[in-house]
Amino acid sequence: MKMRTVWVDEVYQGIVRTSFKLKKRLFKGKSHFQSVEVVETAGHGRLLLIDGMTMVSERDEFVYHEMIAHPALFLHPKPRRVLVIGGGDGGTVREVLKHRSVESCTLVEIDGLVVEASRRYIPQTAAALSDRRSRVLISDGVKFVAETEETFDVVIVDSTEPFGPAAELFGPSFYKNVKRILTEDGVVASQAGSPFYEISTIKNLFKITTKIFPVVEVCLFNNLTYPGGLWAFTFATKGLHPLKDFRASRVKTAKMPLRWYNADIHAACFALPDFLKKAIGR
Amino acid sequence: MKMRTVWVDEVYQGIVRTSFKLKKRLFKGKSHFQSVEVVETAGHGRLLLIDGMTMVSERDEFVYHEMIAHPALFLHPKPRRVLVIGGGDGGTVREVLKHRSVESCTLVEIDGLVVEASRRYIPQTAAALSDRRSRVLISDGVKFVAETEETFDVVIVDSTEPFGPAAELFGPSFYKNVKRILTEDGVVASQAGSPFYEISTIKNLFKITTKIFPVVEVCLFNNLTYPGGLWAFTFATKGLHPLKDFRASRVKTAKMPLRWYNADIHAACFALPDFLKKAIGR
Repeated sequence: MKMRTVWVDEVYQGIVRTSFKLKKRLFKGKSHFQSVEVVETAGHGRLLLIDGMTMVSERDEFVYHEMIAHPALFLHPKPRRVLVIGGGDGGTVREVLKHRSVESCTLVEIDGLVVEASRRYIPQTAAALSDRRSRVLISDGVKFVAETEETFDVVIVDSTEPFGPAAELFGPSFYKNVKRILTEDGVVASQAGSPFYEISTIKNLFKITTKIFPVVEVCLFNNLTYPGGLWAFTFATKGLHPLKDFRASRVKTAKMPLRWYNADIHAACFALPDFLKKAIGR
Repeated sequence: MKMRTVWVDEVYQGIVRTSFKLKKRLFKGKSHFQSVEVVETAGHGRLLLIDGMTMVSERDEFVYHEMIAHPALFLHPKPRRVLVIGGGDGGTVREVLKHRSVESCTLVEIDGLVVEASRRYIPQTAAALSDRRSRVLISDGVKFVAETEETFDVVIVDSTEPFGPAAELFGPSFYKNVKRILTEDGVVASQAGSPFYEISTIKNLFKITTKIFPVVEVCLFNNLTYPGGLWAFTFATKGLHPLKDFRASRVKTAKMPLRWYNADIHAACFALPDFLKKAIGR
């Protein structure tokens, strides 16, 4: 008897659908904010889906998490205190904690269900949340940056798409507060969407952050399981330039276990294709 | 009445499926070698599919075609005669012909049906095949490079996957002949597959070409409609180094209509992630 293939489908913008061969559904829950799902696939390990969109796959999450963390953390001369907004799966925290200078990594995730599901089903990323240097707050990141009196050397905005619970993470008042809580050499890296499919997100985020920070660059990387593969981060600092102030030698001496990021990739990820340069007015 | 969405599906390695929303099926034929199909999609323009695999989408073909052509053509000091093996859709030829130094571009495509279908349904790429500098030969590329007495400054291997009609284009005797027909500053760029899903193809091609050419590098780029997005070319030369011998100023003075490639991208595309460096022994 031939088994029929069952797929986990993500329809994006109504025009493209990405499907992963399903082995087993592990978890499905609904929080106040969104639906949270974990499935086991045949070729991509476990997948975390939020409102039906793939957030993490065990097979390739290393790329996203290395690229949202290391360009910022290797640029900052000595990152001690790091704040992650969103990223309840824990993958970004795992990469942050690879830096020995980091004394504490605070995760502010709005949805406790994301953290719970990840802790239970995706230890590959979530184990880092139990590190003694990790502090997990289930709270609204927008409110947190508005109210906290703490300061941070690096802030990482590891958000979902710019609608639903994450909408305000793409606005100017959020970034004004991020600037306020950043220390002198502060850097903020933010998930910015697909250059192919949602260039307006990148344009808006670039425009907003450029009004607030003296240095803003866009960085690109590859995500196997996100629609179209190509994905962007914006990268804003209080003065450090991601290329001119970057010391490649630090990456080598750190001897970190990395699979994607290296000094060449750091330099390369800020090179933008012509159509994207035009879109952001470069 | 709500219409049911119809998708054009590509299943890859049995584990991932990419689907594009269908508007209209335009052409389906079968040649001696393979099935050839053209469809109109809702979000990606027209698609050319060979044996059910997306080869070209009107929306993003510019990336693939710019990246397989321009790193080689801007590295070579004055490319006059160019050979394209495969690439019957014409997109690579279109990019080659943007270089004013090019006097002739010979396309050797094994399957006349690919050229016919492209000419009829995808003029965006195929129009270039009617340029007075284009010469289209429906013939076996492996045989062509073995027998021709012509020489070329740049050879581009714009092939399908390393099985079926294209299998021999990934072997050593083909590359020995390519070297033989290349002029002194010769460069050959070749489609090499997905670093995520078929790293063995890149490893093999790198190994084979390294035995034949003094300089071999791997270059990466992004393809919206190929599985996983990230794609690779190998880049072999008779001596020129793709970075050290590249003159960025030539790109600016050429004032070419380009949407992806620029001098920054040229430098960046040869930066490889750690896992790929390890795989090819770098």
